[in-house]
Amino acid sequence: MKIYSEQELLRLTTNVFMKMGCSLSDAGVIASIFVAAELRGLPSHGMIRIKDYYQLWKAGRINVKPDVQIVHETPSTAVVDGDGAIGMVAASRSMEIAIEKAKIAGTGWVSTRNSNHYGIAGYYAMMALEHDMIGLSMTNANPQVAPTFSVSPMLGTNPIAVAIPAKNQPPFVADFATTPIARGKLVVAEKKGEKVPFGYVQDKDGIPSDDPAILKAGGSMLTLGGDYVHGSHKGFCLSSIVDIFSAVFSGANFGPFVPPSVAYLPVLDKKVGEGTGHFFGAMRIDAFQPADDFKRSMDEWITTFRNAKPAKGQEKVIIPGDPEREKEMKIRAEGVAILPAVAAEIKEITNELGVEFDQ
Amino acid sequence: MKIYSEQELLRLTTNVFMKMGCSLSDAGVIASIFVAAELRGLPSHGMIRIKDYYQLWKAGRINVKPDVQIVHETPSTAVVDGDGAIGMVAASRSMEIAIEKAKIAGTGWVSTRNSNHYGIAGYYAMMALEHDMIGLSMTNANPQVAPTFSVSPMLGTNPIAVAIPAKNQPPFVADFATTPIARGKLVVAEKKGEKVPFGYVQDKDGIPSDDPAILKAGGSMLTLGGDYVHGSHKGFCLSSIVDIFSAVFSGANFGPFVPPSVAYLPVLDKKVGEGTGHFFGAMRIDAFQPADDFKRSMDEWITTFRNAKPAKGQEKVIIPGDPEREKEMKIRAEGVAILPAVAAEIKEITNELGVEFDQ
Repeated sequence: MKIYSEQELLRLTTNVFMKMGCSLSDAGVIASIFVAAELRGLPSHGMIRIKDYYQLWKAGRINVKPDVQIVHETPSTAVVDGDGAIGMVAASRSMEIAIEKAKIAGTGWVSTRNSNHYGIAGYYAMMALEHDMIGLSMTNANPQVAPTFSVSPMLGTNPIAVAIPAKNQPPFVADFATTPIARGKLVVAEKKGEKVPFGYVQDKDGIPSDDPAILKAGGSMLTLGGDYVHGSHKGFCLSSIVDIFSAVFSGANFGPFVPPSVAYLPVLDKKVGEGTGHFFGAMRIDAFQPADDFKRSMDEWITTFRNAKPAKGQEKVIIPGDPEREKEMKIRAEGVAILPAVAAEIKEITNELGVEFDQ
Repeated sequence: MKIYSEQELLRLTTNVFMKMGCSLSDAGVIASIFVAAELRGLPSHGMIRIKDYYQLWKAGRINVKPDVQIVHETPSTAVVDGDGAIGMVAASRSMEIAIEKAKIAGTGWVSTRNSNHYGIAGYYAMMALEHDMIGLSMTNANPQVAPTFSVSPMLGTNPIAVAIPAKNQPPFVADFATTPIARGKLVVAEKKGEKVPFGYVQDKDGIPSDDPAILKAGGSMLTLGGDYVHGSHKGFCLSSIVDIFSAVFSGANFGPFVPPSVAYLPVLDKKVGEGTGHFFGAMRIDAFQPADDFKRSMDEWITTFRNAKPAKGQEKVIIPGDPEREKEMKIRAEGVAILPAVAAEIKEITNELGVEFDQ
């Protein structure tokens, strides 16, 4: 597996998206978010996705010269139309608007339509941290998940991210799908020929399954909780809230109508809105407490929970954000390993676009 | 089991709290929320809790003449000090403030400290509906729940409620603890001598348990997800976010320092803030979309999900809020059944206070 530096990947990704027609600044934003996913140890949202966007671009299904703009607003809210942009472009602009709103109104809340897959939810939530704000980000996504008591895949893995600054402690950064696991874990288990625990997926009749490939046979993923007895209806509530805030607020497609984020799946017959939807929030800390007091309290919160007594056989409580931050330190130091298959796909693309890439 | 009308219970509860020294208007608010819990089929948060508040009052641990006030604000936010009030008084006033803020700024967000147990979270979220707003409510609570990988009960069942209006369909009302089950279900199973499914509780060493009485032996409840393999760390994220928004934003006690909501447990040695904390949000629909368009889209959202194909052996998908609304229609028609043991406790209290109550 070849190792690349952060700078190499940023340059490569920026060049690829500029060749597709993006402006330097848009391509730079896109590259930052792809590379952030790699650095944080989430390669399922990193360089592997360049191919998806390249194919959507070739199919004419994304707009590389978008006019991302506010179409409606109040002091603390806005609806943003992404104009069919690459998700990262619409999303980062939307989060900037939420932050600008928060500077004046105390909080800012933006619902975005007509966008596409936006990568890692946590990136946008973390944009708030340097402004001494709490950041929030959520998005709907391709339907693969069934509501409790149903077999219809009507919801995406609909993630929620919340980033909260501390003073001497690193920030609290929660970033999680509203399903027991991310889709990528099923793909990995399938490739290894392994079963998955019950509570992740069900078959086409709604019978619990341990087959990671069951989605290809009409199965579906389950919401957080796994089954009704363990609170899957609460996972369904969460996923629904993400869908409604992202899509019904903005006028994007909700639930089963979210358009595919890959070109090999056809555009759906029915539309109930424009593109994919996201929702962003920024809350100025000092709209509630003096920022320094709040951050000191967060230090105490984090320390209190980190020092909770571990269960037998466990080392310690993990504060949300710890694992990604530890990976980031390691990967920054060692470089980013790209799977040969992914590098080969990128090489094909760079050959077609005429971008230099040392595979 | 004796049956009472809504009006009888409202009058009774109002009289009890007035005799404890509450104003007519505060007592009326408290009574509405206790009775709403009974009507919505959540008796664990209804009349059974009058005794807890009566004993806290006798112990001098609540303030029946509180000066609930805003201590800090921006156009879209406020911090409210509940002045040791009964939770329902501080909470309903806080939600009113969130709604007032939303009228002007588009959204309103209130974090409340120095409060107490506030009853059903959904009540406050639903206050927004008649204003064509989305309502949000959350609260921290007595620590009984352990973070993932720990045996220390450091979090409450920390509920989240979100209410979203529709047009011809009834509103979407999610109201759920961030644990697989509410504490009350453990008590019921214990009384019946039944075991509970694995995934609800663990013993003092963190070994999964099916004993509903394990909390008395140093055990703890688990977060939504149940175990790490099924995403309990996501439940821990949610519960933590509720705790931080409710308590660190407001200056209330967080996590393990939340004061007991019953008088038979002593006040804790360490305080990190004032009382229990809540967090409320109100978002004006037309801060995002024309209210009528939004509500029509919500009708379509609800109908789409209600018509999802049921799993084998299931009847239909349940939209959040359906079960409580169906119970409310039935209980309103038939009257509220109060357990003899609860009626007897209330009778003792009414005798002491000199309130009329036909047990």
